[in-house]
This record gives sequence, structure tokens and C-alpha cells, in this order.
Amino acid sequence: MMTYKEMNKEELLEERQNLQKEYDAWKRKGLSLNMARGKPSKAQLDLSNELMDVLDSNSYFNDQTGTDCRNYGVPDGIPEAKALMGEMSEVSPDDMIIFGNSSLNIMFDQISRSYSKGVCGNTPWCKLDNWKFLCPVPGYDRHFKVTEYFGAEMINIPMSPDGPDMDMVEEYVNNDPEVKGIWCVPKYSNPQGYSYSDETVRRFAALTPAAPDFRIYWDNAYSIHHLYDEPENQDVILEILDECRKAGHPDIVYKFISTSKVTFPGSGLAAMAASKKNLDDVRSYMRVQTIGHDKLNQLRHVRYFGNLANMKQHMRRHAEILRPKFEAVWDIFEKNLGGLDVGEWTKPNGGYFVSFDSLNGCAKKIVAMCKEAGVTLTPAGATYPYGKDPDDKNIRIAPSYPPLEELKQAAQIFTVCVRLVSIDKILSEKED
Amino acid sequence: MMTYKEMNKEELLEERQNLQKEYDAWKRKGLSLNMARGKPSKAQLDLSNELMDVLDSNSYFNDQTGTDCRNYGVPDGIPEAKALMGEMSEVSPDDMIIFGNSSLNIMFDQISRSYSKGVCGNTPWCKLDNWKFLCPVPGYDRHFKVTEYFGAEMINIPMSPDGPDMDMVEEYVNNDPEVKGIWCVPKYSNPQGYSYSDETVRRFAALTPAAPDFRIYWDNAYSIHHLYDEPENQDVILEILDECRKAGHPDIVYKFISTSKVTFPGSGLAAMAASKKNLDDVRSYMRVQTIGHDKLNQLRHVRYFGNLANMKQHMRRHAEILRPKFEAVWDIFEKNLGGLDVGEWTKPNGGYFVSFDSLNGCAKKIVAMCKEAGVTLTPAGATYPYGKDPDDKNIRIAPSYPPLEELKQAAQIFTVCVRLVSIDKILSEKED
Repeated sequence: MMTYKEMNKEELLEERQNLQKEYDAWKRKGLSLNMARGKPSKAQLDLSNELMDVLDSNSYFNDQTGTDCRNYGVPDGIPEAKALMGEMSEVSPDDMIIFGNSSLNIMFDQISRSYSKGVCGNTPWCKLDNWKFLCPVPGYDRHFKVTEYFGAEMINIPMSPDGPDMDMVEEYVNNDPEVKGIWCVPKYSNPQGYSYSDETVRRFAALTPAAPDFRIYWDNAYSIHHLYDEPENQDVILEILDECRKAGHPDIVYKFISTSKVTFPGSGLAAMAASKKNLDDVRSYMRVQTIGHDKLNQLRHVRYFGNLANMKQHMRRHAEILRPKFEAVWDIFEKNLGGLDVGEWTKPNGGYFVSFDSLNGCAKKIVAMCKEAGVTLTPAGATYPYGKDPDDKNIRIAPSYPPLEELKQAAQIFTVCVRLVSIDKILSEKED
Repeated sequence: MMTYKEMNKEELLEERQNLQKEYDAWKRKGLSLNMARGKPSKAQLDLSNELMDVLDSNSYFNDQTGTDCRNYGVPDGIPEAKALMGEMSEVSPDDMIIFGNSSLNIMFDQISRSYSKGVCGNTPWCKLDNWKFLCPVPGYDRHFKVTEYFGAEMINIPMSPDGPDMDMVEEYVNNDPEVKGIWCVPKYSNPQGYSYSDETVRRFAALTPAAPDFRIYWDNAYSIHHLYDEPENQDVILEILDECRKAGHPDIVYKFISTSKVTFPGSGLAAMAASKKNLDDVRSYMRVQTIGHDKLNQLRHVRYFGNLANMKQHMRRHAEILRPKFEAVWDIFEKNLGGLDVGEWTKPNGGYFVSFDSLNGCAKKIVAMCKEAGVTLTPAGATYPYGKDPDDKNIRIAPSYPPLEELKQAAQIFTVCVRLVSIDKILSEKED
């Protein structure tokens, strides 16, 4: 089998004609398929329905200290929720604050407060001429939107299967006092599904920031979100708070987790883990912001799971639904794109995404063609700060939401579009 | 009966001796009573327990448009929640955004965003040399803490039974571009329980602010929180969004409501009403901050109440628990302080507080003496910006939380302290 680059013009034009026919046939079906966002499917949501049975009008509504969870108070979370979420996050309950339903909201508020009030007594970023944020790329679009919103200068840091380019990270963080943070999804990264190597984590912990208010924003969104049961197919990363303590830098990291993709995305628990100094800083503004988050939902989650072992068992049921979807995407990609040398894709052991790299300059066109045929993808460029992918090649594939049969159609259409756009690019290069 | 000021030194000393005996006797009991915060009591919380029965594992989880409330999305609230909260707030569903569980959090976020990003495209307050906020006094301590946190210069505006001093408000708002907002609790105000007169509301709506980013922060926390059933004993205020529209100033107000004191303080719904221009401004940052609030809790509230009539019926049951508590406080105050000319207190038709004004310079001492005898009150001064009551006379009484018998003890102890501190003040003045 020849790659497209090895084909001559006539062969490419013939291939193009056949693909165009297939594309037109798909278009005529008037489909509406969505591979844009990392949303759990209905079948996954159904797994947690019994969460709604945990509390009823006859329940005992007090936490383990006797506090009535229906009333005001306990802004940083009930003890048993700290214990459960701490176990999930591999830290002590004392290292935790439990918030509302959204870890994105916690991160936004952290950046917002750092901007308006400063980190642990340091100068608020709004009073600085400039401040910078490191952004491993490709990465999570919603992270980048937050720092864009507050006016950071965002700097691209290339990702590898071991994590961000740590030479660059060290160079920036240890020398430039304008660098205030870095966005990290350390396990099953968004979108590539890479997990940081032990060396990467240790180099993070060993950072000696030029800025006293530099923090690592460690969004451990997929900590227990494996696709496979076998331990050898599950990624493991070092615990960052522990590593930072051991390295003598306990305050340089904020860790974020949530149950958004464990129970219900709209009605889960979100939490933050950090050193006492950092948590006290957070508590000092939380006391002004709110009289407390939803403690009944904390109680509901704690009583539903009981412990981490049950939560992990629950995640196995998610994996049983997600795994066939990922494998269907990979099968179709392999069947339709394998050996053509027109793109590369990742095959992670967990998380919510497959990252696809097309030939340079093709991503926007592929996404547009998919859209025209009824397949919605995350906009090309979204995985880069300011929505600007310098090579216009990265596309994030989110297989979780559509039912399997729809997903297969979407993946098929996607590969047809990749091939058509790639042929056009190669043909135009041959003409040059 | 003589007032204390009419008594001579010997009469006062004798009175003092008797009161000191009673005070010492109370102290020996080692009580622990709390009249500090506007917290609903356990009996009130029990009224809403069936809210926990509304959803179970077999429920239909979609909203009326078919959106699955378990999943991500719908950041500004499901339509039926907008309808219910709109009805509660006397505005159209289109004027509403539904947030999480805390209206204080909405207000904090509004100030935070105005500070860091600006209101509707205006200069962010963090870029200004100075900005001012008008604070009707006595008022709600948590409001003042928010603007203090962000560094506003806060200006006291005296309250009367008709609302804030509107001559002062107009003078400031219409002439000083540094004045960016005013905190209002327009109905059953915190702490006095005053409700703004129609003229006051119309003068608010007619404001012509010097600052284009001036907003009225209209915290309608007690909109349906009456103590009495009879319409003649229920305060009614004009609807502010409507009045502002009629006056041609639709954008000068944000209105806030919540069900914190309708269902559960920790697990209710909070919402904001405003013009489309203002809501679009809010939505532009919400999209960066979160992927949505807890829609299952929205669904739960909508299905529990169905409509405003049921919600009002529910509030009657709250009133049956609260009314005897307010009346007990008033009875004890009247019996022990009536005719002595050592203090004045309010007798509102609703809300959560009684405001007490002692003789000047006595509030801190009264609160401290109460504390020593086991009665916790809101710190003296808390009802003023920066915690500074210029006359040291206002004390906020919160009768809702303690059981009735404990509340009666607390009120009794309070009056003993008021009389002791007042006698000392009068004696010291006689000696001058």
C-alpha cells in the first residue's frame, strides 16, 4: 500500500473522486453527530442514578461532627467529604477543601483572586504590567480561556508522551518572575491522554520559581478514569503534593479534582488540595464569598460511595461503556488512515480524548468539512492558547457522548474528511 | 414609672445591685445561647425535608426542553427554574439567571468581575485610583465585607423606616463618578426590618448616575418572608426592574434572590435578575467560569414547589415557627426595657432580625456582657462598614435559630445587660 505522498497525481485524483462520492452520500443523510466535548453519555449517567436515592425525607442529615448539613456553615467541606475526596486524590483530608459542583469554577476563582488580591500576600496580578502563564500544548481549551480572560501572556510549552518540555518549563519558571503559573493535566492529559513520567513530576516538584507567587495548577481531572482493568494498562503518576513536600517546596502547587465524570457532571463534588498555607489563603476569601457550599450533596456522595474502593468499582462500569467507543475510533482510524501517512493519533489508557494530528495546515479544513456533513468537533485551534494552533494540525476527538453506532458513523466521516483534505494539500504541493 | 435618667444616684445604685444579682445568677448557669446569625432553626429545616424525596433513581431527569439535567450545560439555568424564581422575584423568566446555592456568592462574583474586568465594557475598578460604594446603615455585614475585601471606599447612608436617605443617595450617585454602587435590602431590611416606600423605590429608579457603571445591588433576600398571614401586616414594595424600565434606566439595577431561607440554607437556589444587557455581560464571564450549576437541584426545587402559591404556603409554615420567637423577644424587651428610655427596637412584619439601638457608647459593652453570660450576639459594629458604628449603639438580634425557651432566656439576659450598661453610663454622666 502506498502513502498519499507516494501516489502520483492521477492516482490521487481517482482516490479523491471516490472519497468525494462517499462524502456526498454522508452529507445527504443529514446527520447530526457530536464528538466535540468530553461529556459522559446517557448510559454513563444512568450508572449513578442511585445517588438520588441516598437521601430522603427520613435521612439523618448531620455530618460526623453533628453539624446539620441542611443549614449554613462549614465553608470548606464536611470532614467525611474531605476524607473521601482526599482518598480519591491521594492526600490527607487536612489538605482538602470541598467546593461546589465545578473544579473549573475553583480554578477560575483561584486565578481571579490571584489577579485581584494576590497570592499569599504578594502583589495582585492586576497591578503588574505583565504576567505570564505556561500552557502545555495541545491542552485544555477551558484552562486557556480562563487565563486569556484575565489577560495573561500565554506561552506554549510542547507536550511529549512524558509530559511538558521540562527544560523549557525550568528555564521560564526559575528565571522569569513574570511567570505565575502553568496549567497541567498530569494524568491522561487533555487531549493526548499522556501521563507525566516520574521524572517530569519530580522536576515539577524541584522547581525554584523566580516568582514567589508562582503555582502549578495541577488539574488531576482523570485520576481514576482508566479504560482498562489490568494494572499494566493503567497509568500511575507520582503524587505531586507529596513530591513538592519532599523537595522542600510544599507551597508551589494547587491540585484540583472532581467527581464530574464519576457521578453527574452538573451535580458532582469538586475539591482542591494544597498546603496549609495555600488553603488558609483560599479560606480567607471563601469566608467573604459564601456561607458554604452544598453540604447535602457532599453527604449524598459520601454515603453513596463509602470509600475509594467502591468509587473505583463504579469507574470500571464507566470504562465498560467508554472502552468500546475508544476502540471503535481507533479501529476506524487504523482501517481508513493506517499507512496513508496523513495523520497520527494517540491511544491512551484512560481519560476522555483522542488527539489527532493531521498534516500541517489541514485541521481547520477537516473540522469544517466534518461540520458540513453533520459531525461537530471541537474547533481546530482550541487546544492552543488564543485558539491558535501554529501548525493548524491538532484536532481533539471526544468519543464519550454519542451512542456507539453514531460514533462509528462520525469516525468514518472524519476519516473521509481527513483523506480528502490531505489529498488536496498534497495535490497543491505537487503543483507548486 | 421613672426612666433611668430621671432616677437619682441612690435609686440607680439600688437598681444596679438587683440587676447584678440577676446577671450573676444567669452567669452561674453556664448557658450557651446564640442570637448572632440569621440561621433557620432545625424545626424550619424539617419543613423542607420532602425536598429530598422529589428525585430518586427512577425520576425523569430532563428539563422541559429535553435537556438532561444530570449532564454539563445550561449555564444560566433550566427554563422552569427561571420561571419559578422569576415568579418569586416578580420578573419575567427572561430576566433571570439561576446560579448555585448562594446569592452572596453571586454578589461577590459581580463585585469581583466589576473589579477585575469592568461592568459592560467600562474600566475595571482595579484600574481606578479610587471607587466608592454607598452603604445604608445599619446594614448587612456580609455585604460590607465584600466591598471592603475589594478595597472600596464605603460611605454610610442613614436608614429611615422609608429606606435609605435618598437626598444623600441622589447627591452622591448623580454627581460623583467614583460611586459605583449601593447595597440595598429593600424589604424587611437587615437588620431593621424596614421596607422601602414607593417613593424611595421610584427615586432609586430615577437616579441618573454620574458613573456609567453604577449599579444598585438590590438584595431582595426576604421577598416572601412575612411573619403574618394578614395582608395588612405584610409589607409590599414596588418591583425595581419594572420601575427602572419605566424610568428609562433599565440597566442600573441587579436584583438578587434565593431560597436559602425557603428550603435549605446550604442547598437552595440563588438567582439574579437584571436587564438583557446586564445578563449578557454576566453570561460572557460565566461561560469562562463554569460549565453550569447544579441543574438537578433546580429540577428538585421546581418539582417540589410547582408554583409560587405553594411556595407562599410553605412560607406560612416558616412564619408559624418564627412569629412566636419574634413576639417573645418583643414581649421581654417591652416588659424589661419599656419606659426606661435606655433603648429602642424595631418590630418588623417579616425578615430575620430585630434591630436594637442602645444609648450611645453602650453596644460593645452590652455584647461583651452577654457573651460573658453565655449569649452570643453579632459583634457590635458589624452592621456598619469596617465594623465601625460611630455611635456604638446598634445591635442586631437574630431570633430565628434558638428554640423558643432558649431564646427567651437569651432575651432576658440581653435586657439585664442593657440595663446594667445603661445605668453605668448614666451614673458616670451624673458624676461628670
